[in-house]
Amino acid sequence: MKILTYKHGGETAVGVLKNDGSEVVPVNYLGCSAIDMNTFLDVQNEKKLEKLDRNKELMQGIPLDEVQILSPIPHPKQDVVCLGINYYAHAEEAARFHDEAFGGERPVPIYFSKRINRALADGEEIDGHLDIVDSLDYEAELAVIIGKDARNVKPEEVFEYVFGYTILNDMSARNLQTSHKQWYFGKSLDDFTPIGPWIVTKDEFKNPPALPIRSYVNGELRQDSNTDLMINGIEKVICELTQGMTLQAGTIIAMGTPAGVGMGFEPPRFLNSGDVVTCEIEGIGTMTNKIK
Amino acid sequence: MKILTYKHGGETAVGVLKNDGSEVVPVNYLGCSAIDMNTFLDVQNEKKLEKLDRNKELMQGIPLDEVQILSPIPHPKQDVVCLGINYYAHAEEAARFHDEAFGGERPVPIYFSKRINRALADGEEIDGHLDIVDSLDYEAELAVIIGKDARNVKPEEVFEYVFGYTILNDMSARNLQTSHKQWYFGKSLDDFTPIGPWIVTKDEFKNPPALPIRSYVNGELRQDSNTDLMINGIEKVICELTQGMTLQAGTIIAMGTPAGVGMGFEPPRFLNSGDVVTCEIEGIGTMTNKIK
Repeated sequence: MKILTYKHGGETAVGVLKNDGSEVVPVNYLGCSAIDMNTFLDVQNEKKLEKLDRNKELMQGIPLDEVQILSPIPHPKQDVVCLGINYYAHAEEAARFHDEAFGGERPVPIYFSKRINRALADGEEIDGHLDIVDSLDYEAELAVIIGKDARNVKPEEVFEYVFGYTILNDMSARNLQTSHKQWYFGKSLDDFTPIGPWIVTKDEFKNPPALPIRSYVNGELRQDSNTDLMINGIEKVICELTQGMTLQAGTIIAMGTPAGVGMGFEPPRFLNSGDVVTCEIEGIGTMTNKIK
Repeated sequence: MKILTYKHGGETAVGVLKNDGSEVVPVNYLGCSAIDMNTFLDVQNEKKLEKLDRNKELMQGIPLDEVQILSPIPHPKQDVVCLGINYYAHAEEAARFHDEAFGGERPVPIYFSKRINRALADGEEIDGHLDIVDSLDYEAELAVIIGKDARNVKPEEVFEYVFGYTILNDMSARNLQTSHKQWYFGKSLDDFTPIGPWIVTKDEFKNPPALPIRSYVNGELRQDSNTDLMINGIEKVICELTQGMTLQAGTIIAMGTPAGVGMGFEPPRFLNSGDVVTCEIEGIGTMTNKIK
């Protein structure tokens, strides 16, 4: 099931797509009232989702082309938890670009965070902050959405806590990311986190999902990998983090990016004003954003 | 003026302390209604604060010893923005402890973030997560509270955006902080961010404030410095961050810790169950927390 945040007639709401993708049905009409996706994630459960899935086909919805699709979680409750250097081929290209910042052994996952003031939607333009950024880069990533508060999760229980998946473009200012040592600032500029186009619930995949993941710049294929090639998988990450940190419902975990980002080329191919980035994960969809 | 979050008769509210510190007056009685500190920071302005300050002395308040003081911002809207290695003497002790993680030149500020599920209050016990943490440490810090959305701030305007100051104990798991390369996970465990006891508005200080800052473990003085010894000051940090990142009202910036943390001793003196940490900043107050 595809769950989205959309705007229609001046109102923002959470809805589900009908199976044929033609119409969106507001969850408020389906016995699952929620003012936004954060609230929806707090109140939903397996039973409610089953009912939503059944009833959405019986209702008159709004034609999809009449709504404006927003990012599914425009205002996350907390910063996004991110994995760094989590595909081997990307580890190699990153170390080639800046060994001090990205090189070294990978005995344990690298976690950092990404502040979001407002997550951009599919189709929105990105402010590349090109006055302070000389090395703007893209990173297509699978994002895991947590569906209920997770603490001390055992490996066999991990997917009980996963609500679904979406696409996240972990836009990065390589100059700020490396010069400030910790990556936070170079990852957290306004507009640096397009998320979308919607959340696909976990029941549509085997879990963990093994999905082709790609990115394109101006139509040229740049990243082309599969989410089953992660160094640290979803089970390991959720188990490890929740040993000490409660992951609340609504938490977004960006699972890292495969090889093919701009800094991986020799010479690097960073983004400029007017460039168009498309991120694609099969089974979820595509998300396209142009640099202002 | 001291602004706090407190619990009384089962209700949580925002209040101001009377000048003599004897009573707290709910801001809702003073024409500035707010359900919590995040909302209060959104709606307040200079005029409203002046009115609060005047009127609080005319009202009957609640005796301070009848309320439970909570952390002033128990649930921050976003992760705390933190400064790493921001006092020279601390830079030396940290590099001595782990040169790869903390050594090197300091041409630019180090920014990282700290996730808070719930900020602990003065007096609450800290879960040290001693099952996964073998090097639990304290860090007394001055925290800046942003009072209105800040973007592209000029040096001479910085303090227009500052609401006030509080104390933050940046509890750290040194083993997780260093082994995962990026510091985020080792800084973000549940209970790792006591903040309190209240926010003191900026008008009580010269800005930037030059305040004695200290910490004690079991009564023994460990850190003893002054907030005017920061490497990167409040003006530089707010100007730099807001060149690309909007700092929303309610944002918390932890300005780094001076020398004297546990990892600075040879051998290191990390915290154990039962240890009591007090952080003190003159003009703000003290905050004491025991390790469970």
